[in-house]
Amino acid sequence: MRYEELTIEGRNAVLEAFRAGKTIDRLFVLDGCQDGPVRSIVREAKRGDTIVSFVPKERLDQMSETKKHQGVIAFAAAYEYAQVEDILNAAEGKGEPPFIFLLDGIEDPHNLGAIIRTANQAGAHGIIIPKRRAAGLTATAAKTSAGAINYTPVAKVTNLVQTMEELKERGLWFVCADMGGELMYRQNLTGAIGLVIGSEGEGVSRLVKEKCDFVTKIPMFGEIDSLNASVAAGILAYEIVRQRRFAK
Amino acid sequence: MRYEELTIEGRNAVLEAFRAGKTIDRLFVLDGCQDGPVRSIVREAKRGDTIVSFVPKERLDQMSETKKHQGVIAFAAAYEYAQVEDILNAAEGKGEPPFIFLLDGIEDPHNLGAIIRTANQAGAHGIIIPKRRAAGLTATAAKTSAGAINYTPVAKVTNLVQTMEELKERGLWFVCADMGGELMYRQNLTGAIGLVIGSEGEGVSRLVKEKCDFVTKIPMFGEIDSLNASVAAGILAYEIVRQRRFAK
Repeated sequence: MRYEELTIEGRNAVLEAFRAGKTIDRLFVLDGCQDGPVRSIVREAKRGDTIVSFVPKERLDQMSETKKHQGVIAFAAAYEYAQVEDILNAAEGKGEPPFIFLLDGIEDPHNLGAIIRTANQAGAHGIIIPKRRAAGLTATAAKTSAGAINYTPVAKVTNLVQTMEELKERGLWFVCADMGGELMYRQNLTGAIGLVIGSEGEGVSRLVKEKCDFVTKIPMFGEIDSLNASVAAGILAYEIVRQRRFAK
Repeated sequence: MRYEELTIEGRNAVLEAFRAGKTIDRLFVLDGCQDGPVRSIVREAKRGDTIVSFVPKERLDQMSETKKHQGVIAFAAAYEYAQVEDILNAAEGKGEPPFIFLLDGIEDPHNLGAIIRTANQAGAHGIIIPKRRAAGLTATAAKTSAGAINYTPVAKVTNLVQTMEELKERGLWFVCADMGGELMYRQNLTGAIGLVIGSEGEGVSRLVKEKCDFVTKIPMFGEIDSLNASVAAGILAYEIVRQRRFAK
């Protein structure tokens, strides 16, 4: 298994990585740096939809492992992302209606890893995460996934709402969990389904929730507010498993 | 909420803590130290069933925050433990058959905290953990529990198997999860129940498993071995919730 998180430093190395088609999660560039090579790098980054941050020298120095960053540091995904299409193909290949997790801003890589692990065991065909404000396939996420990252495809999209619209046209419907919803045991969770998991702090964002076809509810009897995001994902996923595979 | 983890150092402070009835999780004593005050402390520790470790001076120096440990350092629970009886009383007070989690060696305080949170939300009456080889109510566990630690009682017992025997006489039956078991959706998980969760690495230990009345199984369709312990606990707990409260 490939657990390393890749930090790429220096102009040639970063430009090379882009040209080799590597998935770069984030690019940090020295603020004010405008020379040719740096502009080429930024251009490649924009073409690849990489998030670019312009930062002061102190920040770069702090991040740098080699101390020879030449004004550019890129963070490459420790694992390769899949395409949404790959996930749909995986479902089709198994002759099953798609079962996809959509993570609306999970920020803790431990939670991401645990959810990938759960998705794999629940027989889901893949996971979709947004590009911004979310944990990516870092070494920590990979480690917490206990190897599941090697089997369950994770796609990263620019706009979760737009992806949901496209998937709806392909026959999926979406369910998210929230307190206002129908009790999950009573709701029909079968068919081609996208399970939306909200972020740790904020839950499901308004725009994403508006795109959901149904809101479902995990019953809670406690004195506190909510469940851990990866635990909630597990509970919902296995209610889907029960209904898809074991309900008479 | 009380999130501090308490390190108590020095002979008077430690002896005082014992005599005040504080729950001391662990006591570290300078190896070879045999004078009167230290012997009094060790005697109190044994009376309170605290785990005592005799360690070299370097180890104590390393652990010490004050650098004035005088040969003794005690770790007090950040939270007070409950008694098993308190958990049974909580169930009785609600007029419900007991629903208890038994954690057979959960070592990661994040998992312990997430499980306490799940137990609270699933309406369980309490959690029982073993004294040895298990995470206790540390500051990390408390934080991860998101406040649930203030509501859901956690009891710490010397011998999990013996506690199971005692609880069986009180009408509880025990279920643990393992691959050989009956599918959880098909098994009757109602009534006075103790849900046994195995440790992260080893699963449920042999002696504890032998005391379980039933072995149940979370269906898994993935390529990897298992689920995260706190996720598995959540999935099992909510299958119990479904059967106890929502099955017709």
